[in-house]
Amino acid sequence: MSYFSDVNKIAYEGPDTKNDLAFRHYDADAMVEGKTMRDHLRFSVVYWHTFRGTGADPFGGPTLLRPWDDGSNSVENAQNRVRVAFEFMEKLGAPYFAFHDIDISPEGNTLSETQNNFDRVVETIEEEMQRTGIKLLWGTANLFSHPRYMHGAATSCNAESFAYAAAQVRKCIEVTKRLGGENYVFWGGREGYQNLWNTDMQRELENLGRFFHMAVDYANEIGFKGQFLIEPKPKEPTKHQYDSDAAACINFLRAYDLGDHFKLNIETNHATLAGHTMMHELEYAAIQGALGSIDANRGDLLLGWDTDQFPTDIYQTARTMLVLLKHGGIGSGGVNFDAKIRRESIDIHDLYHAHIGGMDAFARGLKIAAAIRADGQLQGLVDQRYASWKSGLGAEIESGEHSLTSLEKIALETKAFQPMESGRQELFENIVNRFI
Amino acid sequence: MSYFSDVNKIAYEGPDTKNDLAFRHYDADAMVEGKTMRDHLRFSVVYWHTFRGTGADPFGGPTLLRPWDDGSNSVENAQNRVRVAFEFMEKLGAPYFAFHDIDISPEGNTLSETQNNFDRVVETIEEEMQRTGIKLLWGTANLFSHPRYMHGAATSCNAESFAYAAAQVRKCIEVTKRLGGENYVFWGGREGYQNLWNTDMQRELENLGRFFHMAVDYANEIGFKGQFLIEPKPKEPTKHQYDSDAAACINFLRAYDLGDHFKLNIETNHATLAGHTMMHELEYAAIQGALGSIDANRGDLLLGWDTDQFPTDIYQTARTMLVLLKHGGIGSGGVNFDAKIRRESIDIHDLYHAHIGGMDAFARGLKIAAAIRADGQLQGLVDQRYASWKSGLGAEIESGEHSLTSLEKIALETKAFQPMESGRQELFENIVNRFI
Amino acid sequence: MSYFSDVNKIAYEGPDTKNDLAFRHYDADAMVEGKTMRDHLRFSVVYWHTFRGTGADPFGGPTLLRPWDDGSNSVENAQNRVRVAFEFMEKLGAPYFAFHDIDISPEGNTLSETQNNFDRVVETIEEEMQRTGIKLLWGTANLFSHPRYMHGAATSCNAESFAYAAAQVRKCIEVTKRLGGENYVFWGGREGYQNLWNTDMQRELENLGRFFHMAVDYANEIGFKGQFLIEPKPKEPTKHQYDSDAAACINFLRAYDLGDHFKLNIETNHATLAGHTMMHELEYAAIQGALGSIDANRGDLLLGWDTDQFPTDIYQTARTMLVLLKHGGIGSGGVNFDAKIRRESIDIHDLYHAHIGGMDAFARGLKIAAAIRADGQLQGLVDQRYASWKSGLGAEIESGEHSLTSLEKIALETKAFQPMESGRQELFENIVNRFI
Amino acid sequence: MSYFSDVNKIAYEGPDTKNDLAFRHYDADAMVEGKTMRDHLRFSVVYWHTFRGTGADPFGGPTLLRPWDDGSNSVENAQNRVRVAFEFMEKLGAPYFAFHDIDISPEGNTLSETQNNFDRVVETIEEEMQRTGIKLLWGTANLFSHPRYMHGAATSCNAESFAYAAAQVRKCIEVTKRLGGENYVFWGGREGYQNLWNTDMQRELENLGRFFHMAVDYANEIGFKGQFLIEPKPKEPTKHQYDSDAAACINFLRAYDLGDHFKLNIETNHATLAGHTMMHELEYAAIQGALGSIDANRGDLLLGWDTDQFPTDIYQTARTMLVLLKHGGIGSGGVNFDAKIRRESIDIHDLYHAHIGGMDAFARGLKIAAAIRADGQLQGLVDQRYASWKSGLGAEIESGEHSLTSLEKIALETKAFQPMESGRQELFENIVNRFI
Repeated sequence: MSYFSDVNKIAYEGPDTKNDLAFRHYDADAMVEGKTMRDHLRFSVVYWHTFRGTGADPFGGPTLLRPWDDGSNSVENAQNRVRVAFEFMEKLGAPYFAFHDIDISPEGNTLSETQNNFDRVVETIEEEMQRTGIKLLWGTANLFSHPRYMHGAATSCNAESFAYAAAQVRKCIEVTKRLGGENYVFWGGREGYQNLWNTDMQRELENLGRFFHMAVDYANEIGFKGQFLIEPKPKEPTKHQYDSDAAACINFLRAYDLGDHFKLNIETNHATLAGHTMMHELEYAAIQGALGSIDANRGDLLLGWDTDQFPTDIYQTARTMLVLLKHGGIGSGGVNFDAKIRRESIDIHDLYHAHIGGMDAFARGLKIAAAIRADGQLQGLVDQRYASWKSGLGAEIESGEHSLTSLEKIALETKAFQPMESGRQELFENIVNRFI
Repeated sequence: MSYFSDVNKIAYEGPDTKNDLAFRHYDADAMVEGKTMRDHLRFSVVYWHTFRGTGADPFGGPTLLRPWDDGSNSVENAQNRVRVAFEFMEKLGAPYFAFHDIDISPEGNTLSETQNNFDRVVETIEEEMQRTGIKLLWGTANLFSHPRYMHGAATSCNAESFAYAAAQVRKCIEVTKRLGGENYVFWGGREGYQNLWNTDMQRELENLGRFFHMAVDYANEIGFKGQFLIEPKPKEPTKHQYDSDAAACINFLRAYDLGDHFKLNIETNHATLAGHTMMHELEYAAIQGALGSIDANRGDLLLGWDTDQFPTDIYQTARTMLVLLKHGGIGSGGVNFDAKIRRESIDIHDLYHAHIGGMDAFARGLKIAAAIRADGQLQGLVDQRYASWKSGLGAEIESGEHSLTSLEKIALETKAFQPMESGRQELFENIVNRFI
Repeated sequence: MSYFSDVNKIAYEGPDTKNDLAFRHYDADAMVEGKTMRDHLRFSVVYWHTFRGTGADPFGGPTLLRPWDDGSNSVENAQNRVRVAFEFMEKLGAPYFAFHDIDISPEGNTLSETQNNFDRVVETIEEEMQRTGIKLLWGTANLFSHPRYMHGAATSCNAESFAYAAAQVRKCIEVTKRLGGENYVFWGGREGYQNLWNTDMQRELENLGRFFHMAVDYANEIGFKGQFLIEPKPKEPTKHQYDSDAAACINFLRAYDLGDHFKLNIETNHATLAGHTMMHELEYAAIQGALGSIDANRGDLLLGWDTDQFPTDIYQTARTMLVLLKHGGIGSGGVNFDAKIRRESIDIHDLYHAHIGGMDAFARGLKIAAAIRADGQLQGLVDQRYASWKSGLGAEIESGEHSLTSLEKIALETKAFQPMESGRQELFENIVNRFI
Repeated sequence: MSYFSDVNKIAYEGPDTKNDLAFRHYDADAMVEGKTMRDHLRFSVVYWHTFRGTGADPFGGPTLLRPWDDGSNSVENAQNRVRVAFEFMEKLGAPYFAFHDIDISPEGNTLSETQNNFDRVVETIEEEMQRTGIKLLWGTANLFSHPRYMHGAATSCNAESFAYAAAQVRKCIEVTKRLGGENYVFWGGREGYQNLWNTDMQRELENLGRFFHMAVDYANEIGFKGQFLIEPKPKEPTKHQYDSDAAACINFLRAYDLGDHFKLNIETNHATLAGHTMMHELEYAAIQGALGSIDANRGDLLLGWDTDQFPTDIYQTARTMLVLLKHGGIGSGGVNFDAKIRRESIDIHDLYHAHIGGMDAFARGLKIAAAIRADGQLQGLVDQRYASWKSGLGAEIESGEHSLTSLEKIALETKAFQPMESGRQELFENIVNRFI
């Protein structure tokens, strides 16, 4: 049975189409820098927002009532939802999806019942993956919604919470492997604190390190080759999350000797909540070899919470794609729409509009980034700005020939100066605008 | 000649005094947890704000015209200012001070003239230090005010800027050693970027690492034993500073193998600009062995720039002192008032009010923290909250006996639960209030 | 049946008591500036957070499971909850409470059923009010939680939503009158917009004005004499709320000729979300004759959402009480704890700790404010700062004797000057600290 | 003598030109909705940033050393600067400029000398205006830079500051009239407070009202017909500015009966510092008849101060132009580039790049806005969303036929419902993107 019978497979129809349900820019097979758009972008649909989002917010209840959902917590309802989801993703043409364990299958009264439910729904998923060719970008365990995780999971003050989280993660890695997941993500939902008065930060961080080592060991044991990812976010739901930004994540990985096993899943809205641009977080992670995947969305910089809006700003998508192209792409990661429709977007077609808009925005970002690179003026200006490092004094310094004392000797012979290099920010911005 | 002839040495007169120019709480010789207040707090006055601050802001010129300043750039004026400064610090009873090279002596037309000026003023400083017994907490080179540093110093796109900065730092370390400075600080004023379009972040970070290694080598060469410190700040003057917060600093130190040589100088207003509490930054740095010193001030959390107000909130000073007491004190660091009077505080007595207020606020913070520790109820509640880690399952996990699989086995046998530990944040806050 | 049988009536035991369940500062009958603390503070407990709060947040479900709640939506459960609430308030000694219609009674399948439920629960409330002497500070209708209000209520794009809201408000004013409520509040939960693309702001504002006029007319019709209040909040749940701050509210009241009928209910956390201090909002409203009541709580200025924490910062409560004392008190308003315990505060005693802490913090704030006023030094410094307005040129200007031209004449004769008045912020802060 | 001899008049060369010093989109004579781009946009260059900006910031001195500036404070230097400015504006093709009194002429030792300097420089300006046809958008007096205004001007605690400000404003209105200025602006630089402890807010607001009435009276007296404008900004340099946002400004104008004489000059960066979008502030002001002019720039939403960057985001310029077109244009106002080049943009061509980028961005914004209006789909969706107000119940309510009671009757007959109107935010955003 189809729930989207009035929607055809979304096709690329070019910028001039009048069809709201068509791509204007995302042409999966079009080549950019020698690779298809599909392979550059590796779009992924998230199960949680798109198929489990209800529109509830802290001031009001669900608004998004879906015709396919019988409202029950049954495995059958969950299996039916899987079929709807795959119909949606197939029509959309997204090659990947991502899920939390409890998004796709209902929790039971016991862990064993929960695991059993999970296995039954995963069967349906396997069928649908086989039928459609859609692949799993990553799996993850939800370690923050249940009250047992109110104080955190791996960083809980309660050791049983840690144990239960371990069980959930074990099972979810097993399932991710079974489904051919290319990554496995940890988002530290409540791994942080509400206040420091009641918190033993050192113990909590050490336990978090321990937890991740257990995951690494288990992956080795079962031969799971997917990439582990952690995901920076500074706050919300807790007052402070330990994985607050890329720097905090990488420092944590270094401190607990996990750097070889983990990369980062960088999210736009989390970057800005941390006071950084997405471009910064991507570049920072990339130069440390830690860029794994991206959660594509957009925040509202005048609001202080994670609005998870769909990405539509093509400046933003162009900047993101420039960093990705510069560093050789996203590897086994993808462009994962961790984004939700507004709670007032109650028409089921809004799900399509949202994803089409996001995919087109990224396709444009990719084309713009490639055009900027092909043009070369922008990079030329950067090179010119750093020219003093490529020879003479600069090259000597970079090759390690100098000390404070030897440089002082040079400075003592230098007349008063100010650099002649203009920052040229305005020209840079004008050049970028030529490609928008 | 005295410029503060109407001000006597500021004395401890107790909470009930009517004297605006007296300490109500800071009693230098009073013992707290077996140490004098003086030794706990190691107060330091900053030369820049207190003796070079003019009240200028981006929308208006100087308002703080000092009777002792002849307005010239002469060495004599600088030397005279030194004497005024030491009169002030002596009357205040602050045991330490801190400076930038160009705060204390005028730049000349050449580096050699500048160095010569520096040496001459340092002589006067030496005399005054000897006369008063006031010591140097730290020296630092100003690598951000001159136009030659518009693009940064160690991270400039211009190699000559790097060289000049090296010369300044070499000299300033030499002088810091000469004056018995207990630390040497690097604040990365423009070590960051205004925009990423024109920036080669990787090269800049590598050059910053190189620069610090040169400083370490030089210190070894001359036998400077003071502690090197870097200072987190997320933004301002640049759009993004590389040393954005404690995590970014420590990650940088790890990445460039500098962790053994550097600790952090944590500033309250910088912490909040980075979206963290001061208490967080202190605790985070301390558990990684990187807490070196603090810049004591206060921001306005509704404003987005570094207001550098004097610390007066005793909740804030109590939290700071609790972390310091917990981790065994501030070591060779101090409580350095990197704070400035408001530009409308044009009366020279306002300099006294400001410092007296800050010192009293920290003295109260120290007494409150010690009282909370002596009382024990707060720590008792923390211990109780983590009790599950001290035996049984928790202890097994912490001793490394478990894997995801073994924990799953336990979870499978556990009935549905939610932790019984209340976070008790309200009670914690009530307990703290009993000591305020 | 008692649900708090282990809790005695909370008594004033003074600052040195060891009892966590006692007041250290709130002594209801103690006199301050000629009035009891009870009458100054007029504390009010909110029904929504305290008796309907579940601990759910956007990332997790309920954590606060109450023994008295059978989980059903029945009128009996609601009535039983009323009795628990009054037991709590009675033991606490709060003289007032406040509610939304749907907090206290369950919505039915039709409006008429809802109204009928409401009436039945209100009967129980009347009994309890009579039994305990606790009074109603204000009633309000919840016009934001139900999906019918997803686009707003009075500002909905849907006229039926407006009509339904009108019905709810009519009934709720009727009930508020019946219960002797001293005020009636409108908080514009979704009276705003998520984006301007889809919004007709002018129509929405006009409809909001219309709605309030209908309420005024109805109050006149039935002889409801309570004060109408609107409540500033800048954002959340919507991206922009029309009642964004005190200025926006008062401007709205002026624009739609409602100023005679409405005052403001000012909330601490809403003030700071709008970028203002609470002290600013109070003073601003007061000098325009629009200060009606306060919602007492506290935000976390490093977080961008309404955390609604209990007020515990005595600087904050002192500032609030200073403004209230200055302007002759809160009138028919009160200090209403629109605050919630943290979701991890799962012990039912935490409800007591939270309110005791808030009440003590306000009692201290009141005593501090009164002491600052009695001392007089602070006000003396303010008077001195404005002395130039009290005679001579200043007095002439204020009495309307001058024009630009006549003042120019004076300025032409004046020599270059800068004001001699120091702002003395540091001294002001020191003086305040003497009373903390 | 020319200082820009290597720069030709900036010409429209279309999107494909390779010339960095050409317009790609701004074609002054091109018609949009029946009016030339020139007349829609009324671009204005600001004297302060563009000809007096030095690149100084709170952490460093001037970087922008201009070959035409002899560094002196002489009238001749000022007159020469005028000629450079008009050469720049002429080559740029901007039809308007704006200035503060002290931007264009040096302050003397006495007010009379200052006025004399002003008159002499104004003569040169008159010559250049005549020569080039460039007109004055507005004049304004700088009432915030001199120390005499440290406590504010009209809101100073010092009555002499008020008088001096009156003199400056009188003269500046006279000059603005003489130069045919179409508006006169008041930006309340320090009309606010640094803290409330030392502030008498009520007196200060009343004095501000008095001051504006004097200006109105003077304008009437001399027959100045230009529009008076006040300019919202929430903070910086003071902690709180009275004119914090459009709502606060309009409320102030209403409270002091100034609404007939003043409109608002809305600035993008000020809007966002106040927590609003520019689109909000424009729409809000417009529907109250108070939209006068705009200061075109852009902030960095991750920074908390006024960065005054040149506008380059075409989403932003399109939104601005949509509001302007909707409300019939900007009237006697203009698009005034209150924007500054970065302090590292030390090449004098950067001044051209900056303005060209801004003008092109607004030209694109205008074309996009006109295209969205011509297309009609977006407005059609808005109309559809509000359809329920155009007939039936909605129309009855809007025509005043209903009361709470009559609406309750209708609601009692209505079955449970939720609105069927989707907010469609994602589709709206997709539609907008089609025009970007």
